[in-house]
Amino acid sequence: MSQIVGHFINGEVVVDESNTQPVFNPSTGEISKQVSLGGAKTIDEAVASAKAAFPSWSKTPPLKRARIMFKFKELLEQNTAEICRLIGEEHGKIIHDAAGELQRGIENVEYACGAPELLKGEHSRNVGPNIDSWSEFHPLGVVAGITPFNFPVMVPLWMFPMAIVCGNTFVLKPSERDPSATLYIAQLLKEAGLPDGVLNVVNGGKEAVDAILVNKDIQAVSFVGSTPIAEYIYRTATANGKRCQALGGAKNHAIVLPDADLDNVVNSLLGAAFGSSGERCMALSVAVAVGDEIADKMIAALKDAMANLKVGIHSDKQNDFGPVITAEHKTKVIGHIKSAEQQGATICVDGSDLVHTDYENGFYVGATLIDGVTKDMSSYQAEIFGPVLQVMRVKTMQEAMELINEHEYGNGTCIYTRDGEAARYFADNIQVGMVGINIPLPVPVAYQSFGGWKRSLFGDLFMYGPDGVRFFTRRKTITQRWPTAQIREGAQFSMPTL
Amino acid sequence: MSQIVGHFINGEVVVDESNTQPVFNPSTGEISKQVSLGGAKTIDEAVASAKAAFPSWSKTPPLKRARIMFKFKELLEQNTAEICRLIGEEHGKIIHDAAGELQRGIENVEYACGAPELLKGEHSRNVGPNIDSWSEFHPLGVVAGITPFNFPVMVPLWMFPMAIVCGNTFVLKPSERDPSATLYIAQLLKEAGLPDGVLNVVNGGKEAVDAILVNKDIQAVSFVGSTPIAEYIYRTATANGKRCQALGGAKNHAIVLPDADLDNVVNSLLGAAFGSSGERCMALSVAVAVGDEIADKMIAALKDAMANLKVGIHSDKQNDFGPVITAEHKTKVIGHIKSAEQQGATICVDGSDLVHTDYENGFYVGATLIDGVTKDMSSYQAEIFGPVLQVMRVKTMQEAMELINEHEYGNGTCIYTRDGEAARYFADNIQVGMVGINIPLPVPVAYQSFGGWKRSLFGDLFMYGPDGVRFFTRRKTITQRWPTAQIREGAQFSMPTL
Amino acid sequence: MSQIVGHFINGEVVVDESNTQPVFNPSTGEISKQVSLGGAKTIDEAVASAKAAFPSWSKTPPLKRARIMFKFKELLEQNTAEICRLIGEEHGKIIHDAAGELQRGIENVEYACGAPELLKGEHSRNVGPNIDSWSEFHPLGVVAGITPFNFPVMVPLWMFPMAIVCGNTFVLKPSERDPSATLYIAQLLKEAGLPDGVLNVVNGGKEAVDAILVNKDIQAVSFVGSTPIAEYIYRTATANGKRCQALGGAKNHAIVLPDADLDNVVNSLLGAAFGSSGERCMALSVAVAVGDEIADKMIAALKDAMANLKVGIHSDKQNDFGPVITAEHKTKVIGHIKSAEQQGATICVDGSDLVHTDYENGFYVGATLIDGVTKDMSSYQAEIFGPVLQVMRVKTMQEAMELINEHEYGNGTCIYTRDGEAARYFADNIQVGMVGINIPLPVPVAYQSFGGWKRSLFGDLFMYGPDGVRFFTRRKTITQRWPTAQIREGAQFSMPTL
Amino acid sequence: MSQIVGHFINGEVVVDESNTQPVFNPSTGEISKQVSLGGAKTIDEAVASAKAAFPSWSKTPPLKRARIMFKFKELLEQNTAEICRLIGEEHGKIIHDAAGELQRGIENVEYACGAPELLKGEHSRNVGPNIDSWSEFHPLGVVAGITPFNFPVMVPLWMFPMAIVCGNTFVLKPSERDPSATLYIAQLLKEAGLPDGVLNVVNGGKEAVDAILVNKDIQAVSFVGSTPIAEYIYRTATANGKRCQALGGAKNHAIVLPDADLDNVVNSLLGAAFGSSGERCMALSVAVAVGDEIADKMIAALKDAMANLKVGIHSDKQNDFGPVITAEHKTKVIGHIKSAEQQGATICVDGSDLVHTDYENGFYVGATLIDGVTKDMSSYQAEIFGPVLQVMRVKTMQEAMELINEHEYGNGTCIYTRDGEAARYFADNIQVGMVGINIPLPVPVAYQSFGGWKRSLFGDLFMYGPDGVRFFTRRKTITQRWPTAQIREGAQFSMPTL
Repeated sequence: MSQIVGHFINGEVVVDESNTQPVFNPSTGEISKQVSLGGAKTIDEAVASAKAAFPSWSKTPPLKRARIMFKFKELLEQNTAEICRLIGEEHGKIIHDAAGELQRGIENVEYACGAPELLKGEHSRNVGPNIDSWSEFHPLGVVAGITPFNFPVMVPLWMFPMAIVCGNTFVLKPSERDPSATLYIAQLLKEAGLPDGVLNVVNGGKEAVDAILVNKDIQAVSFVGSTPIAEYIYRTATANGKRCQALGGAKNHAIVLPDADLDNVVNSLLGAAFGSSGERCMALSVAVAVGDEIADKMIAALKDAMANLKVGIHSDKQNDFGPVITAEHKTKVIGHIKSAEQQGATICVDGSDLVHTDYENGFYVGATLIDGVTKDMSSYQAEIFGPVLQVMRVKTMQEAMELINEHEYGNGTCIYTRDGEAARYFADNIQVGMVGINIPLPVPVAYQSFGGWKRSLFGDLFMYGPDGVRFFTRRKTITQRWPTAQIREGAQFSMPTL
Repeated sequence: MSQIVGHFINGEVVVDESNTQPVFNPSTGEISKQVSLGGAKTIDEAVASAKAAFPSWSKTPPLKRARIMFKFKELLEQNTAEICRLIGEEHGKIIHDAAGELQRGIENVEYACGAPELLKGEHSRNVGPNIDSWSEFHPLGVVAGITPFNFPVMVPLWMFPMAIVCGNTFVLKPSERDPSATLYIAQLLKEAGLPDGVLNVVNGGKEAVDAILVNKDIQAVSFVGSTPIAEYIYRTATANGKRCQALGGAKNHAIVLPDADLDNVVNSLLGAAFGSSGERCMALSVAVAVGDEIADKMIAALKDAMANLKVGIHSDKQNDFGPVITAEHKTKVIGHIKSAEQQGATICVDGSDLVHTDYENGFYVGATLIDGVTKDMSSYQAEIFGPVLQVMRVKTMQEAMELINEHEYGNGTCIYTRDGEAARYFADNIQVGMVGINIPLPVPVAYQSFGGWKRSLFGDLFMYGPDGVRFFTRRKTITQRWPTAQIREGAQFSMPTL
Repeated sequence: MSQIVGHFINGEVVVDESNTQPVFNPSTGEISKQVSLGGAKTIDEAVASAKAAFPSWSKTPPLKRARIMFKFKELLEQNTAEICRLIGEEHGKIIHDAAGELQRGIENVEYACGAPELLKGEHSRNVGPNIDSWSEFHPLGVVAGITPFNFPVMVPLWMFPMAIVCGNTFVLKPSERDPSATLYIAQLLKEAGLPDGVLNVVNGGKEAVDAILVNKDIQAVSFVGSTPIAEYIYRTATANGKRCQALGGAKNHAIVLPDADLDNVVNSLLGAAFGSSGERCMALSVAVAVGDEIADKMIAALKDAMANLKVGIHSDKQNDFGPVITAEHKTKVIGHIKSAEQQGATICVDGSDLVHTDYENGFYVGATLIDGVTKDMSSYQAEIFGPVLQVMRVKTMQEAMELINEHEYGNGTCIYTRDGEAARYFADNIQVGMVGINIPLPVPVAYQSFGGWKRSLFGDLFMYGPDGVRFFTRRKTITQRWPTAQIREGAQFSMPTL
Repeated sequence: MSQIVGHFINGEVVVDESNTQPVFNPSTGEISKQVSLGGAKTIDEAVASAKAAFPSWSKTPPLKRARIMFKFKELLEQNTAEICRLIGEEHGKIIHDAAGELQRGIENVEYACGAPELLKGEHSRNVGPNIDSWSEFHPLGVVAGITPFNFPVMVPLWMFPMAIVCGNTFVLKPSERDPSATLYIAQLLKEAGLPDGVLNVVNGGKEAVDAILVNKDIQAVSFVGSTPIAEYIYRTATANGKRCQALGGAKNHAIVLPDADLDNVVNSLLGAAFGSSGERCMALSVAVAVGDEIADKMIAALKDAMANLKVGIHSDKQNDFGPVITAEHKTKVIGHIKSAEQQGATICVDGSDLVHTDYENGFYVGATLIDGVTKDMSSYQAEIFGPVLQVMRVKTMQEAMELINEHEYGNGTCIYTRDGEAARYFADNIQVGMVGINIPLPVPVAYQSFGGWKRSLFGDLFMYGPDGVRFFTRRKTITQRWPTAQIREGAQFSMPTL
């Protein structure tokens, strides 16, 4: 019988054999493990554990909390190989890509090490005569995170290190598609010295999600996933009185201006469109060429470059990217390619019939390039989340920007140009939260914050970085005066103005 | 026929005679005016006006937007007498109290004058080799505020100056009980140079509120009122995809320790409990005495002091406080006094049968002191919002703190003591957002932020001050690299780590 | 007998007839007034006045101090015409330029209005168990400013509003060449409500400067002037134990790349080189053209444009610029033009023999354009401070940058280009404190800070903006624990680590 | 022949046998090593090495620089035993005290790990229409630190981690009394990955110091030592155009109010006065008792407690403190005790004749308690830097505060009380930079900043923490506009106001 991936509650791995679901190795198409699916009862146990751990943890000085993060960073680095193996086996991404994911996650741990600086309040002396006032940032209590399959390590690391270092205790529900790496790093954090109950992991599906959303002891929910689910999470969490940030889908366009450095464009588009099989919320899936001349050149160069791409198993470093996450998703991606063709686009490179010689049951889709895409096509409107790059042709930069601004998503975007004015005009006027100038995947560094505009994010605050600190803390404002025995003040019936 | 108070849309006062409601002078009990009640159509017009004004206003440099606030401050100061008169006539608060309200509101305008400083983004040079990244804070678009009757000038000034100076355009729905002062200051802002459409005011009731909550063009809603409504606003606004901060009710306790300076306690409690007839979300309505000795002394002193309180018309400076807002509300407050008596409390001073000799139809309730209140009494559980001070007796400070921490509200609180340790322990462990140490009404100054914990605030961010800036802006994070012609980079399929 | 401009000490204008010096009207060359020259005794009186005012002023809440700045801004705006007249009569700059100077000065007053925000300290809760620590920013005491003739209003406004709003009291020694406008605005600040003694102005020369530098009660000196004097000030003030920031000379180069928009280059260079007769420390006095093609075009266009420049009296708005400050300085500027010619440069446009038909005794120098300047010429090495634009020709941008980086000054610089990479490379690698990208006079806005690198600034902190707050305050760091009666701690002989 | 401690230049230990000085083991009084004394030539070599390393190091992204600090922290923790042994052997402090010193130093390394956050600049969008401006914080170049014998590890760690992580390269001249631990940690930083030349250590005396002060390539000097030397360093470094922060001596008073918790007072005074033999600039050397009653009780309790103190060799954990640094210093400390007696004070406990039975040549002075000290005594005016606690008696808190405010030093101070008002009044009005409330050694945590007032610090900025970032960086302010081809602007001769 295959191994069962359990939950992590109050410092212990808890395996529940009563309700499990298979975990696949997408590279081979085989079932590699089972995962326990928790329900309301498991969530409640995890929350109870987190609630019990809160009083002591929240009183621990930030400096001491941060030191556990320093140690956690060491352990993540020491265990890179194992973490990347676990990611690869269940997600399918190639080992160098898993290492990149982990590195980006570690950067959030590094940022969390600065908690004593980040948690500083604002002190105002003499707001009135001998009256002081200051604000402090207190933890919320038990908080929860719900994370997607495509970054089983990085996205959890966007959330729980900061939440925990701020003094909260945490319940994480990672994706049930690739749970092992997440569980592994949770155990590393215990090894780094985290008290039991401060971080809990519950695997599960919708039942677990719903249990989180209605649990009275959970103060806040942080979510990354698709837009319909993000909207559901935001609506339900807030209706239950919680604070919530819910990050949804994306359709990230790159504008290619005629003055762009074509070699750079082609090289960086390859990685940004096909890396991790396009299963990234920051993947560049649409290239908008301004003018046919650059469009033709770009397509020609892309076709040449795509001929050399290697698709295959996660463990082989020579591969450029791996399979998609499930057989169902493979079918869906291929459906988008077909629909584009049916709706009039030109399939320049077609990866839909790729069969890997060694792993014929793997969920592979080859790199696909589609020209002549227009905004009414369903392949354009949807988030494909596969290795498919669609090219649109426009006459002006303004036209390209309108396309982007009219799209329901506003996560990431990029412009390729050497022109300072074009870049600034684009960055200033585009209705998108994360903007790259000659940077195809403008994922903000850990000390800035991540988030989209429009229907790519519901809530006030971005994820991680400075906004992460604010999301996982609440203000307390204290105003203080010490009376002197000599001075008596008369009663004041008016609104006091200090 | 009486005057009709209209809306203020696109820079013009718009009177709609088709649907009006009377506005009372609570000091006399007479109807003084009518107010137009807007519905969905009026809201939509106001939003359309705000939407049209947004592109130009949001592009106006923050420094220029701030200069209109500098001028607005001047005009508010020059028109203090008129504003206080309008407040007094419709709300009933005494002129010196209205002046205090206005002053506190002006402080928010002063803070908004610092917009160029407050809107600074975070710039990171060399996040990777020759790659820079920075965050900017952009306005949201059209945003809305819904404000209560008890501070018809101050609470609107908590919201719209900051929202507007950040580059948003605004639709305000003030209380229909006392709309004139709000309308007046909106017109002053036009006089200060605000372009038409940037600030719009629509009077109305629930229909107007609901029209705001579902309007697709409104990006954010800021609310102050009672907890049930706050919860409704938060739930509905977020279900419609908006960001929302909703501030609700309060039950603010003062703990009186045996070492407190009794003269100070009595003097400051008088103002904090009875000022503005107790119709303040920061009013101190419960005094928790630790030990019978201080309780007895305090009650004796309060009784003496209360004998001298003057209750009457807003325009007479000699008065300490005025009427409550409506006849219905008067009945409700008196009901709470009666229920306390019936449930076993002692009415030490009873203001429930006060009839003003000159204004016998005014909605007056006299200052009321109740001893022996316990936590099961309905007068304790509810927010009375009247000139009623309830005294509870406990044996220890810990017991007093538990009372507060168990209450559903967590808006404001205060401790009276000379003891440094007691004060710090209290401030650190009390589950309340705004804490006073020997400060009975710890309303944060305009450059800190205002908000409660627990069911006194729904959302992530406090109101006004630094949190106000964040509520009314959204981040955009830009990452920039300029390619050099000499250097070509290979495609990168891994998660880039800069 | 002509009017005597006095000092302003303890809220009173003090005229000392015993030691005076003439004040000229540079536009006519006539003596218009006399100015009292204070010595050590006058400085000591001013310091004594400032010292006496300090205890009360430093205890005044920042919000109240800021409100005087709000009022000061109003008064400066209301008195614009008079201030500009006074500047023009004694400095010679045209009225629109004086208005620009004043406006830039007012921006510093506006920034100072944000004092409550700017003075916030950093609050750290739980640096150890139940131990808090925070930093406050206290005023220094009596501080002094020494300011140059070229901005008699703006440079004083860079200093004293921020110093004063931070709680310091101030002694200002403005330039004795054009003292009236400075004295006038000092009186306006009194009118705005500033208590007597908080701001004092002493006119004088080196004797007054030296008295400031050795006075034991002056805590800090802020200086703007030439580099040799800045160095002297810095050395002497610090040797007397004071903190000091001393801003010196400049030689600001513009690099003109071949892709620059030539019309913009020419238009903006005219103003940046000849505005205020080049008597600005941010004047662009050297244009470095990359390649002969752009150089030739630029010179041709500049010659055409310069033919239309109007030079004349300050009060005529049609004039582009006015005279230089003194007859001696006129001689010196002309000497630089002659030396350039003698050392091999080409004088394309020669303004050295300009005689104004109406004001033949005015200290006029016409706009001068010199081509073929090289780095060994004395006119290149010196700061000319006159309406002289020197053109250098180089082959590469790198060569242009080396010129700038090798110059002893590092105040301001600018690049003209459309190329994003060129601009970023320039900004990142140039050894200059204030960099413009297509901005010829990159004077930072009031909410950033002003300062040069290399021998253009001595000290740690830039002037005005955030650095101004730090210069005029000192930290106090408080660490607090309240002992509980129950817990006794043993003695700790080791270095405590909280 | 004994071991020779060398310099550390360009990544290599360099031993120079030509000019050495003995290093003692103060616990035994024996010479344990020799140390090379560098002169101008050695300094110049170190500076040349640092200068060569600067271009590459300053271009390294802050995140990469920070990662070396993460590794450095690990290595410091792993090598704690060896570092403490080296400190103990040459300084004499007991191993637990050395561990405390190291821990406090590591906290500065932890803070430096946050460099990407700390180095963020301020970004202002739209300072004018489509004009942006931002400030960046660039490294200075080669910077130097000069550190004292009493914290051979902690004080260097106050300086070089922050300087280096900001992109500077560093030349450190530690104390020649106990050079080995400093040299050891410098080598650990190389092991952590620091490129050669970025950190250099030169041992030496005044000749080395002077060579630093005049070296043209050194941009800034950070110093900790005695006030006369601090003043010399500040004057000389600034006269050579450098920025400088120079921290000098101290005389730290504790005020003991009658309501203080006496057990806490006695326990914490023992550690604060006698720990590390009083050789700390934050040692509490004067206890000011308010009223004879508390004075008498305190002295009685201190005498009892002092009877149990153990003085001896660094390696024995049972000891409370060890010897002073040299035989000469022992003589000087004893001289202060004798002079106090001669000038009328009462020696309650006399440690001046202590001879250790096992280490009779060790430089031991026993814990000494002196009562009846007055402000005219020379023992009061000087910084004794030995295990001597002097008690003064005053009648009021005000009198105690005047003593402190009149003293030339203003480094640290403390008040013992439970009274909130007393504590706040004290903290607010005392002319001292670091204030403790019931905290005897109020050394700010690494994320606040360290510095005294009056003659305890020369310069603008405190050491380490946020001020450390500012000291080791300089601003560059960039203003940017991209011209559009469509829009031409006319020349602007007035002062531009954006």
